[in-house]
Amino acid sequence: MKVGDYLKLLNSQLVTCSADESIETVATRLSNFNIGALPVCEAGHKLVGIISERDLVRSFAKDGVRLEGRRVRDLMRAKVITCRLDDEMSVVQKQMNDNRIRHLPAVDGDTVVAMISIRDALAARLMETRDEVNILRDAVIAARHR
Amino acid sequence: MKVGDYLKLLNSQLVTCSADESIETVATRLSNFNIGALPVCEAGHKLVGIISERDLVRSFAKDGVRLEGRRVRDLMRAKVITCRLDDEMSVVQKQMNDNRIRHLPAVDGDTVVAMISIRDALAARLMETRDEVNILRDAVIAARHR
Repeated sequence: MKVGDYLKLLNSQLVTCSADESIETVATRLSNFNIGALPVCEAGHKLVGIISERDLVRSFAKDGVRLEGRRVRDLMRAKVITCRLDDEMSVVQKQMNDNRIRHLPAVDGDTVVAMISIRDALAARLMETRDEVNILRDAVIAARHR
Repeated sequence: MKVGDYLKLLNSQLVTCSADESIETVATRLSNFNIGALPVCEAGHKLVGIISERDLVRSFAKDGVRLEGRRVRDLMRAKVITCRLDDEMSVVQKQMNDNRIRHLPAVDGDTVVAMISIRDALAARLMETRDEVNILRDAVIAARHR
């Protein structure tokens, strides 16, 4: 299943932030939308970084309350691994496992169109494998009734 | 696949915290172990709550620097949904989806033995479904060669 095909099955909203926003604002947005990471974008959804719950927790562990007033650009990772709409979800899952990451922005050129989570990647693989089970079941039944 | 059988396949370490620890300590532990949630335990791994990255981020969003000096007991959720070693991973996955949670402690009596993540639940389902694919493939081949 391709990333684009999986995204068509969802009705998910793209939530982003900008590098100039405060980390308090980003913490609120992550909480309100119940999501784990946001792509950091310039005008027109151009991807410039990624910031996750884990980045916030790691910075809080390191700096405690000195975090106050920091901006997304201070905490975000600017080097982002991305996927494209015609990538296979199995490849995306492998990229996540190999790089030990949980979120991968899906891009079209340099524009972010969605955020894929490891949960999405596994759910898509599960759907694919279930489809295969159904096809094989039909084949078994057909073979037995020849 | 039962929770206990899945856990045997992993070599995962149980990481916990106590209700009296500071949230800075817990943030450091979550970061160091690269995990999303910790069971909160009394002596002997007796479960008394759960605390997650999301709880920390939500509290940071709400209280900012006023978080300093807070304890796990101030942020943890004391009402915890748990699973048992003889529960099916499919049931655990459903519980997580229905309750919109990402972590479920596995308990033996009132003692925590592991933390199951939504990633674990999906990975276990994927393994099961792949096993089913292999069995069905063999059945198709056998039926064709009768």
